[in-house]
Amino acid sequence: MASDVEIAAMRRALELASRGPRSRNPQVGSVLLSPAGDVIADGWHHGAGTPHAEIDALSRLPRGAARGATAVVSLEPCNHTGRTGPCAVALIEAGVARVVYALADPGQHSGGGAERLRAAGIEVEGGVLEGEARELLDPWLTSRALGRPHVTVKWAQSLDGRAAAADGTSKWITGSTARADVHRRRAESDAIVVGSGTLLADDPALTARDGDALFPHQPVPVIIGSAPVPEGALVNRHPHAPLVYPTRDLAAVLDDLYDRGLHRVFVEGGPTLASAFVAAGLADRVLAYVAPTLLGGPRAALGDIGVPTISAQRRLDIEAIERLGSDLLIVARPPSESESH
Amino acid sequence: MASDVEIAAMRRALELASRGPRSRNPQVGSVLLSPAGDVIADGWHHGAGTPHAEIDALSRLPRGAARGATAVVSLEPCNHTGRTGPCAVALIEAGVARVVYALADPGQHSGGGAERLRAAGIEVEGGVLEGEARELLDPWLTSRALGRPHVTVKWAQSLDGRAAAADGTSKWITGSTARADVHRRRAESDAIVVGSGTLLADDPALTARDGDALFPHQPVPVIIGSAPVPEGALVNRHPHAPLVYPTRDLAAVLDDLYDRGLHRVFVEGGPTLASAFVAAGLADRVLAYVAPTLLGGPRAALGDIGVPTISAQRRLDIEAIERLGSDLLIVARPPSESESH
Ligand SMILES: NC(=O)c1ccc[n+]([C@@H]2O[C@H](COP(=O)([O-])OP(=O)(O)OC[C@H]3O[C@@H](n4cnc5c(N)ncnc54)[C@H](OP(=O)(O)O)[C@@H]3O)[C@@H](O)[C@H]2O)c1
Ligand SMILES: NC(=O)c1ccc[n+]([C@@H]2O[C@H](COP(=O)([O-])OP(=O)(O)OC[C@H]3O[C@@H](n4cnc5c(N)ncnc54)[C@H](OP(=O)(O)O)[C@@H]3O)[C@@H](O)[C@H]2O)c1
Repeated sequence: MASDVEIAAMRRALELASRGPRSRNPQVGSVLLSPAGDVIADGWHHGAGTPHAEIDALSRLPRGAARGATAVVSLEPCNHTGRTGPCAVALIEAGVARVVYALADPGQHSGGGAERLRAAGIEVEGGVLEGEARELLDPWLTSRALGRPHVTVKWAQSLDGRAAAADGTSKWITGSTARADVHRRRAESDAIVVGSGTLLADDPALTARDGDALFPHQPVPVIIGSAPVPEGALVNRHPHAPLVYPTRDLAAVLDDLYDRGLHRVFVEGGPTLASAFVAAGLADRVLAYVAPTLLGGPRAALGDIGVPTISAQRRLDIEAIERLGSDLLIVARPPSESESH
Repeated sequence: MASDVEIAAMRRALELASRGPRSRNPQVGSVLLSPAGDVIADGWHHGAGTPHAEIDALSRLPRGAARGATAVVSLEPCNHTGRTGPCAVALIEAGVARVVYALADPGQHSGGGAERLRAAGIEVEGGVLEGEARELLDPWLTSRALGRPHVTVKWAQSLDGRAAAADGTSKWITGSTARADVHRRRAESDAIVVGSGTLLADDPALTARDGDALFPHQPVPVIIGSAPVPEGALVNRHPHAPLVYPTRDLAAVLDDLYDRGLHRVFVEGGPTLASAFVAAGLADRVLAYVAPTLLGGPRAALGDIGVPTISAQRRLDIEAIERLGSDLLIVARPPSESESH
């Protein structure tokens, strides 16, 4: 059982973790507690090629000062020699007496750290605030488990599921609060994807904007479809050169994005492309921004998603419902394998 | 200014009001307070032909016992001689010193009670907990103001706005909690309306059921459309004989229902009829039961509602969002005239 002090330290470790960049590496935080329960150091992972969170925390202490300490870390210490040595070994060498972690490391190469620590006589406790850690690392866990990017599919719709009025006009269905939320989420993504229909219809900039300014982190703009990007297109002025895939093979596009280290993919439509991702079972999370309005007519936010009959419906679990101005954001995802049985 | 004691008494008056039947008469409650602020009697309106709430409360006291009292009543005392005499006069004759009410009576014949009380030297204060009273009486106020029934249009949909899968199957999109909520609301309605498409497709019983039992109050079943009701149709076994209107003139149907004293109309679809009510501006309240599932395809819960372009969209105000099992209920209505400017 973790003590209250350790649980509080884990909460702080998770808070520190979220300061790290979202990249192909997981966001991890760590807090070192003295035997009396005082915080003696903390740290987090600052991105690929930099020390893991535990090492970052240990490095803030003089040699020997972690002897007998408890290391609280949001992910199971790794057992893997990459650009850095295994964290399990570093903790053993530092002489910590106890390790508390939130989430087991599912990696084939990096997992097994807890085992190794125990074998060295260290007390190990896993699963502390596991839910919170899972939420933070969900995209990373998905991409790690599936060997492809984590995909969020976003759309804006009227209550009755339309993306535009009959003549195609849609400015604006949702309000400014909802649109600001989209930009914030763009800034947390590695790539932002549209179909060539949207490229040609809207000439989107595909930047993540904080009011008039750009967020520091910009997703790479991605266009899927055979239409060439017009010369004067706004996307050509994006800080990153756009990636253009003249294909309809979404899995192949995701493979390539994964190889480029773009592991958090944000699909913004339009309806044809969003439907194709859902139909292919490639939507790990759905964001439906629902405006309190009715439009009717032919322009549905999702088109054909390959559901011929009710038993083939795509059930979702609702993760969150937020009110954004007068709009609603519904965050949902397919039930995990274990729950769907 | 109403005192805390009077506000508490108004809260109780509203609670009593809601015990009254929903009928062509408003639900009204009343509490009588002694000059010292003690509750000395209360009452509510039990339906057309029975005493109004104030009279019901006064009747519980010996003659003369209300002298100097404060009458707290959720609707402005009426000034109208109907089956009963004007309440304003009864309060004057009982010798009350002060009257506190929530909502002004908008009726041409019944309004003016406050005026009459003041003319008799009684202190009068209106608008206390007016919002709560308005919510309770919304359908009654609407039907009174418009001279037609209050119309609720209900539908069940997937998150992406579909009523069924491509092949028409839809059992069940929403879960049992949502369906129970629909039955409860049917029992609060005077009439339940479907199009002949739904009659033929579903053979609905159109009863309000509490599990396997019938609720005590059953709405009158109404069918709009030219298809004759099949002989063996379940609706023919409804406690009330169905009203069948072989027309597409919804306003004419509502007029007739109004004349029959059916002032709370619950429209249950299908999509064609629901869309026609929305298109005609005859949906005073919308209930969208949203299931966390995606269906795509052609069977939208709303079809054409006459919105050619975005500026003609039907904006709604969201009144409530409820979670019912894994489903959502979104209650919304068109903005009131004053707000839409
Ligand atoms: N409500 C919203 O949230 C939202 C968001 C974005 C856009 N929009 C609106 O949506 C409209 C454009 O949407 P759209 O549906 O016409 O275009 P779209 O979804 O942006 O692009 C469709 C194109 O995507 C390509 N594509 C790539 N992979 C595909 C696959 N697996 N299956 C099918 N197509 C694939 C195809 O290009 P090829 O034909 O060249 O192969 C297809 O024509 C615009 O009016 C825009 O304003 C709305
Ligand atoms: N998701 C839900 O909440 C829900 C609820 C109920 C039903 N349903 C499903 O909906 C399907 C049936 O729906 P539906 O759309 O085919 O039929 P519907 O809306 O039940 O009935 C359509 C008929 O209503 C009549 N009508 C009366 N006034 C009209 C007007 N002003 N404009 C147009 N039509 C008017 C017309 O009859 P005439 O042609 O004879 O004039 C029309 O054919 C069934 O599969 C049922 O299971 C779903």
